[in-house]
Amino acid sequence: MSSHQQTREQLLETLKDYLRIPSISTLPEHRADVRRAAVFTAGQMRAAGLDNVELMEDPEGGHPLVYGDWLHAPGKPTLLFYGHYDVQPADPLQEWITPPFEPDVRNGNIYARGAADDKGLLLILIKAAERVLRGQGGLPVNVRFLIEGEEESGGEHIARYTASRPQRLQAEAAVICDTEMFAPGLPTICVGLRGLVYGEIHVQGARTDLHSGVYGGAAPNPLQALAHILAALKDRDGRILIPGFHDALRPPTEAERAAWARLPFDERAYLEHEMKAQALVMEPGATLFDSLWARPTFEVHGIRGGFTGEGAKTVIPASAVAKVSARLVADQDPDTAIAQITRAVNEACPRGVTARFQAIHAGPASLVDTDNRFIRLAAQAMTEEWGVETVYVRSGGSIPIVGLFNEHLGIPSVMMGFGLPDDNLHAPNEKLNLDNFFRGISATARFLELAGA
Amino acid sequence: MSSHQQTREQLLETLKDYLRIPSISTLPEHRADVRRAAVFTAGQMRAAGLDNVELMEDPEGGHPLVYGDWLHAPGKPTLLFYGHYDVQPADPLQEWITPPFEPDVRNGNIYARGAADDKGLLLILIKAAERVLRGQGGLPVNVRFLIEGEEESGGEHIARYTASRPQRLQAEAAVICDTEMFAPGLPTICVGLRGLVYGEIHVQGARTDLHSGVYGGAAPNPLQALAHILAALKDRDGRILIPGFHDALRPPTEAERAAWARLPFDERAYLEHEMKAQALVMEPGATLFDSLWARPTFEVHGIRGGFTGEGAKTVIPASAVAKVSARLVADQDPDTAIAQITRAVNEACPRGVTARFQAIHAGPASLVDTDNRFIRLAAQAMTEEWGVETVYVRSGGSIPIVGLFNEHLGIPSVMMGFGLPDDNLHAPNEKLNLDNFFRGISATARFLELAGA
Repeated sequence: MSSHQQTREQLLETLKDYLRIPSISTLPEHRADVRRAAVFTAGQMRAAGLDNVELMEDPEGGHPLVYGDWLHAPGKPTLLFYGHYDVQPADPLQEWITPPFEPDVRNGNIYARGAADDKGLLLILIKAAERVLRGQGGLPVNVRFLIEGEEESGGEHIARYTASRPQRLQAEAAVICDTEMFAPGLPTICVGLRGLVYGEIHVQGARTDLHSGVYGGAAPNPLQALAHILAALKDRDGRILIPGFHDALRPPTEAERAAWARLPFDERAYLEHEMKAQALVMEPGATLFDSLWARPTFEVHGIRGGFTGEGAKTVIPASAVAKVSARLVADQDPDTAIAQITRAVNEACPRGVTARFQAIHAGPASLVDTDNRFIRLAAQAMTEEWGVETVYVRSGGSIPIVGLFNEHLGIPSVMMGFGLPDDNLHAPNEKLNLDNFFRGISATARFLELAGA
Repeated sequence: MSSHQQTREQLLETLKDYLRIPSISTLPEHRADVRRAAVFTAGQMRAAGLDNVELMEDPEGGHPLVYGDWLHAPGKPTLLFYGHYDVQPADPLQEWITPPFEPDVRNGNIYARGAADDKGLLLILIKAAERVLRGQGGLPVNVRFLIEGEEESGGEHIARYTASRPQRLQAEAAVICDTEMFAPGLPTICVGLRGLVYGEIHVQGARTDLHSGVYGGAAPNPLQALAHILAALKDRDGRILIPGFHDALRPPTEAERAAWARLPFDERAYLEHEMKAQALVMEPGATLFDSLWARPTFEVHGIRGGFTGEGAKTVIPASAVAKVSARLVADQDPDTAIAQITRAVNEACPRGVTARFQAIHAGPASLVDTDNRFIRLAAQAMTEEWGVETVYVRSGGSIPIVGLFNEHLGIPSVMMGFGLPDDNLHAPNEKLNLDNFFRGISATARFLELAGA
């Protein structure tokens, strides 16, 4: 080990310090924490030896971007590293074994909100750059880091910044570390992501809350109406009923389907030990990988309105709101999807109430070409580190920045994944496997060397 | 005015003091306030001149009953006066024009949570007894007061106490002041109440919350399942689909229907100015009074589960709960209704989740005979006070104690109503008309005189 290499203990302490910051970007009360995480990120980038490190403020009041670069390899390609320092809310708090912002190491994992999504994986990128830069006195490629703090809350700041196509983002490829390995020990590159439309269905009944004794039987009930609307958008078997929603789907190639079929996978174990559910509920006729990677979704995330406390309140609420999202796949257009959902909500609205769909944010799906040089070199670096052939998969999740980098910068994204399928992203007891954390740094450092060769 | 009669100002100040106590019986954090309201009630009863006034504690930890009596009219009938000193929760707070527990007099009304339901009306009974007792040195009848603090939260204490058929509750009739006048200036006695089953539908999907990107498209969603269950229990037109739910209904008599048709009523004005909704949503073919008074309901009051805060969280919740109720009419049996709802929920449950209905409390509907002597005398007293013939109506609400008094004590309930249809019970800006408050005291005092004659 070079004297420039940090020990595992040092790396772990830095990770813990990072995870202690409750940088929940969707909750206004955590605004100062989000900023603290931005400052921490910038500090790590400076310590790594990057130049021009700074917080880039959002003129529209969003969370700052963190930028840094190292551009002293003339004639060599430039890579744009991306990650996010914000995290999801931590509720329901009572289901965490240890508190979400008090990182705890157990069984080779570190447990905390943001461990895998995305602080732990982002730190891999920074520490890999630091290892090569400090260890060899420079990098074999040029790098830029662009780190955001709104990935979990819409990413408007980075979207506007990227859309302005600044000189600062000139690069041959992006490197994104926000995905997972298909299985423990199986190096994985993600080449496809679903897009997302997130929004709210607002239903309005009477102009004031009503007593269900006095008015029940004759008054419109927005919660009941919402039930009918949601039931009209997706049937009991999981089939999405939004007219036109499946029209633009590009099915996976036969080669891709065949590769998926070869992945080490036990559907029963997945159901019982990873999803921890009684049954898969997916569109009839679709396979699991189709359903997760190549088919759109429609999900309801929460319903607001009326009384949900302890005890009994016999209220017919004046209004109700359902928070919903749809995952999109190639080649669905987000604006078309929003229009289709809007129309379907209007058409499903029962009489006596009004309903409208309000989109909050949206981004397209992404598919990356596996023949890209950087994708192949990343796969090689990971194959060397783990001694196992790297596999190409897709992800059911959404990383809107991949679509934005493609659209505005014209560059592909290399998605090296070091998370694991049971990391509990967006759920209680989120974790990151520490072996993946340390190997991820080594593999990314090796990728930097290969990319500059 | 006798020197024993309190001035309107004095009565109003007492009412305001009563309404300032946030005695919300469903919320554990208001336990001390509920007790304060019990103590205040007892103080008023003592001040009225009643004997044996005391708080009767609940061995099972519920809120105390308040008892008091005056039994010095041998050979005369005994009346059992009932009311409740607890109130509904006040949310949504932001919709109140003045704070719910800072009583405000505007346009001849007093605005506060509990103004009409039921502190204001309960105070009418106490102040009427006080006026006769203090003014004439005694009452022409015997009276008992039994006041509870759990009417809005299940009423278990008074139910157990009444079921024990104590000597203390021996009476010829109950007098209950917790209903409303059909229209301003139209004295009204309520002779029918709907019953209630209140409960929760619990739906369980996966054992932990899931990320809708990673699992969406294949995971069961309890909120979506709840939408299908609720849609299966009541259709888009308001028709209840629970099998057997309408089997035991006793339709109103032709005479009763004819009397309802003569009531001064403008359905359009009701819709626009009282319910403040766009359209009536009721079982096809039913009239409005049928729907409100003689047909059962099924309503959803709130849905818990997932994320309902600001911003976006892409969670598929592990579980979801709908708070629901059904109003029952004669001759539906509450236990049968619970069994029917339970079966319907089970049958409507989509695959991939489990669902169960859990009843929280239940009570039967009540119908009172209009030929009863005390009903007729109450009508006479109200007719004299307002100079208009008293009408008999039903109420869509539930006052479980009426069924309990009938079942366990074998006595009918005289429901003198001094509220108004636009009092916003269980909603923001609850109010009580002050003219009704003062006239209600006079009419009730007159009823005491007539009952003892």
